[in-house]
Amino acid sequence: MARCSVCGAPAVAYIRYQKRYMCRDHYLEFVESKVERAILRHRLVRRGQRVLAAVSGGKDSSTLLAVLSRLSGKLGFELVALYIHLGIYDYSEKSREASLRLARQLNVPLIVFDLKEVLGAGIPELARASKRPPCSVCGMVKRYVINAAAVELAADAVALGHNADDIAVYNLKSFLNQDLEAISKLGVRTESIPGVAVGRIRPLYYVYEKESFLYSLLAGLPFLHEECPFVDRRQMEVELKETVNQLEDKRPGLKLQMVSKLAKRVEDYPKPGGSIGRCPSCGLLSSGGECSFCRVTRRALGRPMGPVVREWFRRRAEELGLGASRRSSLS
Amino acid sequence: MARCSVCGAPAVAYIRYQKRYMCRDHYLEFVESKVERAILRHRLVRRGQRVLAAVSGGKDSSTLLAVLSRLSGKLGFELVALYIHLGIYDYSEKSREASLRLARQLNVPLIVFDLKEVLGAGIPELARASKRPPCSVCGMVKRYVINAAAVELAADAVALGHNADDIAVYNLKSFLNQDLEAISKLGVRTESIPGVAVGRIRPLYYVYEKESFLYSLLAGLPFLHEECPFVDRRQMEVELKETVNQLEDKRPGLKLQMVSKLAKRVEDYPKPGGSIGRCPSCGLLSSGGECSFCRVTRRALGRPMGPVVREWFRRRAEELGLGASRRSSLS
Repeated sequence: MARCSVCGAPAVAYIRYQKRYMCRDHYLEFVESKVERAILRHRLVRRGQRVLAAVSGGKDSSTLLAVLSRLSGKLGFELVALYIHLGIYDYSEKSREASLRLARQLNVPLIVFDLKEVLGAGIPELARASKRPPCSVCGMVKRYVINAAAVELAADAVALGHNADDIAVYNLKSFLNQDLEAISKLGVRTESIPGVAVGRIRPLYYVYEKESFLYSLLAGLPFLHEECPFVDRRQMEVELKETVNQLEDKRPGLKLQMVSKLAKRVEDYPKPGGSIGRCPSCGLLSSGGECSFCRVTRRALGRPMGPVVREWFRRRAEELGLGASRRSSLS
Repeated sequence: MARCSVCGAPAVAYIRYQKRYMCRDHYLEFVESKVERAILRHRLVRRGQRVLAAVSGGKDSSTLLAVLSRLSGKLGFELVALYIHLGIYDYSEKSREASLRLARQLNVPLIVFDLKEVLGAGIPELARASKRPPCSVCGMVKRYVINAAAVELAADAVALGHNADDIAVYNLKSFLNQDLEAISKLGVRTESIPGVAVGRIRPLYYVYEKESFLYSLLAGLPFLHEECPFVDRRQMEVELKETVNQLEDKRPGLKLQMVSKLAKRVEDYPKPGGSIGRCPSCGLLSSGGECSFCRVTRRALGRPMGPVVREWFRRRAEELGLGASRRSSLS
C-alpha cells in the first residue's frame, strides 16, 4: 500500500507531477498551501480586506470557499459568499441547496440572489427574449451580478473558482483563435476600477481540476455533481480539454507549467480596445454606451435592470451590516 | 470513382477542408495558386526582385522551388537556389543529389555550399567541438549561411520551405512555453535590414504538409524521403504535430485557420529585446557583440568563420554574374 510521502500514513492521493503520495490531511494541506502561496505571491488579498466569493454549488467553487474560509483567519481577511439562482430548472434548485449547505457547514455568510425573483426572468427567459445563446447570456449576467454585488458590498476582490484546467483550456482556445485580448484577461487577478468594477482574483489558478475535485470529496464538502443542462458536449472547450489532458498525460505538470508561464506573461498581451466608462443606466463598468446587462434586459424586459440589481444588493448589504457607506465610515 | 470538382477527370486528391476532389493538373494548380495568393497578399516578392530559395532536398523545399520557378515568369522575379551540404554523413550526400537533380529538372541556377569544404568541419564536428546539440548548431549555421549568401548575392528575399503544419506546430510549442518573442517571428515574412540581413519569406505558409508532399509526388519532383539522422523522435515538436493533427481531424481546416489568424496578429506580439547591430567579425546581423556563427566557429575552429563564408559567396556570385556590386550597377 502506498504511504504518505510526508507522514507515512496510508495514502489517498498521488500527485503525479511531483511523484508524491499523500494521506487525507496532507492532501488537504497541499491544496490549501497552493492557494495560500498564490494569494501571497500575487497579493490577491491583504489583511483587513473583504472578499466576495462567487459560488455555484459545483466542486470548484466549493473548494474555493472552503480553502478561503480556512485561510481567512490566518491571513486576516473577511469572506462573504454569493450564490446566483439562475432559474435553470431543477439544476438551479439543486445547486442552491448545495450552496446553502456548504455555507452553513463552513459558517460563511451567504447571499442568495434569485434572478427570477428580482428581474422576473431567469436565464432561459432572457436567452429566448434576447435571441442569444443561453451560455453567452448566462456568462454576461453572472459577470454583471457578481460585480454589482461586490460594488454594493464594498468588497475589495471577487474570488472566482477557475482552476488550472479552466485557465489552460481558455488559454488554448483563445490561442487557436489568436484572440490575444481574451488571453490578456486570463491572469491570476484583474485590477479594481474604483466605484465601477471590483477586481477579480483566481485563488485556484494553480490547482488542477482533479485536485479541486478530490479536495471537495476529502473535505466532505456538499457539492452538486450534475452539469448545467445547457452545457454543449460538442463545444470547442470540451475537445480542447481532452487535448490538454493528453499533453499532460505525456508530460506530467504541463498544465501547471502552462498557467505558471501564462501568469508571468499575461501583461505582455494586448488589452481590449474601447474606453473604460460608466453605463449611463446603472453607473457600473461599460466599454462605451449602455453596458451589456442593461442593454439585454432593456430589450428582453422593457427596461434596463442594472439599477434594480444594484438597489437589491444595497438593501441586502445594509441588512447584513456590510454596506459600502457603513464600511467607508469605519475605515 | 471520385471525379475532379473542376473538370470531371478522375480525381487523385481530396481537399477535406474544402470538400473538393481534384485531378492531377487541377491539384497542382490549386497549390500553385495558394502560393501565388500568399505572395500577392503579403507582397512577398515584387517584379524585378531576386529571390534566393533555400533547398534541402526534402519535399517542402522541392515544392517551394518548383512552385516559385513556375511563378517566376508570371510574376517577373529572378530565382536562385542554395543547397548547404551540412556534412551529415550519407544523409547529406543523398540530399545533395536530390537537390542537384531538382535544380536541373526545373532549370534553376543552384549554388552548393559545402560546409566541410569551406570551413573544414561539418555539423557533427561543430556540434562536438562546441558541445552544443547538433540540431541547435545546425539551425544557427543554416540561418547564418543562408543570410550571408543572400547578402552577397544581392537577393531581395530568402524563401524558406516552412509549411502550414510547421508554422502551426512552432506556434503551439512557443505558446505552451509562452515564448511570445518566438511567436513574433512566425509571420509570413520578415523585413530586410540593408547590408546586414535579408528578409525571409514563407511562400508555403498556407500549404499543408501533406499538400506539399502530394505536390512533389504529382509534379514528379526528385526529393529525399529520409529524415536527418539527428532527428529526435521524442522531441516536443513530434508530440505537438500529433496534437495539431488530432485537432485538424475533428475540425478540418483548423491548421489553415491557425496560420491565417496568426498571420494577421503576428505584429501584435512583443519582439525580442536586444539591439540590431553588426557582428564585429563578419559585419552581418548580431544582437550584440559577435554573432553566434562567428562565436561558435571561433571556439570550435580557432577563428570566426563568418568572413570566410562571405568571401566564398562573394566569389561565387561574381562567377555567376550575380554579385551585389554588379547588381547595384545595373539597377
